[in-house]
Amino acid sequence: MDESADTGTTARPRRAEAIFAATLELLATAGYEGLTMEAVALRAGVNKTTLYRWWKSKDEVLAAALTESDLLTFPVPDTGSLRGDLIETARSIHCLLTDAATAPIAAAVLAASPGRPSLAAVGRMFFADRAAREHPLFRRAVVRGELDDRTDPRLVMDMLAGAIWFRVFLRAEPVEAADIDKAVDIVLNGIAA
Amino acid sequence: MDESADTGTTARPRRAEAIFAATLELLATAGYEGLTMEAVALRAGVNKTTLYRWWKSKDEVLAAALTESDLLTFPVPDTGSLRGDLIETARSIHCLLTDAATAPIAAAVLAASPGRPSLAAVGRMFFADRAAREHPLFRRAVVRGELDDRTDPRLVMDMLAGAIWFRVFLRAEPVEAADIDKAVDIVLNGIAA
Repeated sequence: MDESADTGTTARPRRAEAIFAATLELLATAGYEGLTMEAVALRAGVNKTTLYRWWKSKDEVLAAALTESDLLTFPVPDTGSLRGDLIETARSIHCLLTDAATAPIAAAVLAASPGRPSLAAVGRMFFADRAAREHPLFRRAVVRGELDDRTDPRLVMDMLAGAIWFRVFLRAEPVEAADIDKAVDIVLNGIAA
Repeated sequence: MDESADTGTTARPRRAEAIFAATLELLATAGYEGLTMEAVALRAGVNKTTLYRWWKSKDEVLAAALTESDLLTFPVPDTGSLRGDLIETARSIHCLLTDAATAPIAAAVLAASPGRPSLAAVGRMFFADRAAREHPLFRRAVVRGELDDRTDPRLVMDMLAGAIWFRVFLRAEPVEAADIDKAVDIVLNGIAA
């Protein structure tokens, strides 16, 4: 029932992807309050005991779902230039926040996060994981001589991802393709005359 | 009871600031669901009929509270340089998102926004109002020759405000004073080597 599949990364139960999908769908439709271990088990078609063998709490399974589910993963680009890589990454983030399959998950994470310390820890983990994945993009740019090696990749990604989250969810306005290019050009070259 | 006070801006009832404070406090403590016209009237010590004479719905009074309450207003800086003005503005935004009096309001807005079209409209109005207030800062920089006049001020503010929101609420990590300076320097000069 809970034999692990060799995914080449961390050990996980055989029906991991179904469990992750059930977790994220429940979060999106029922909110953080409606997300329970019982509901996840039922929706994923696994025993509750199986679920508890792998994760001790709903925050643990949520953290695993956010970082490991195929739904929220996008490839780290390698276009040959920092500009190309940042535009591709920003487009993927925009897609994640607006695609019908993933936007409700992002909205639910946003709605659930403030004022919940356990979820804050999940958020920290999720975005630290993303930053680690994006890191090669910046390292390659340093090697190519496009980027000063004192640049803080996390701050750059906070500014790009932050601008997209902010406009989509707080300003509730569309992000055009040209806006993404312009944001990347600001990050690369600045606005000073 | 509902005679308007001449504030030099839009007409508003005499106890407007009390009504706005009550609205924002209720949002912060009871959430969007707990925010009702009845509760606002009770907490502000005004008649419900007075409230309805000025605003037709809780979204209307919330929009007015967000844009007009003294609680969420900060002065637009005029330090003499674009860098100084952007740093001051970013610090004020950071303060708003972390100060004990205002952080719960920001968190509640964030929690309530996704998936509520009427609130999305409120958000659009709120940030459009902020953008209009910040506009002179960019205009002065163009006049001083510090800034190309084709720069989109909204995109710049999305990147700065977005980075702060993102780090405080999603990554759940502190923003240091040095991070704010670094973010402004990236916006001004870029990261390209």
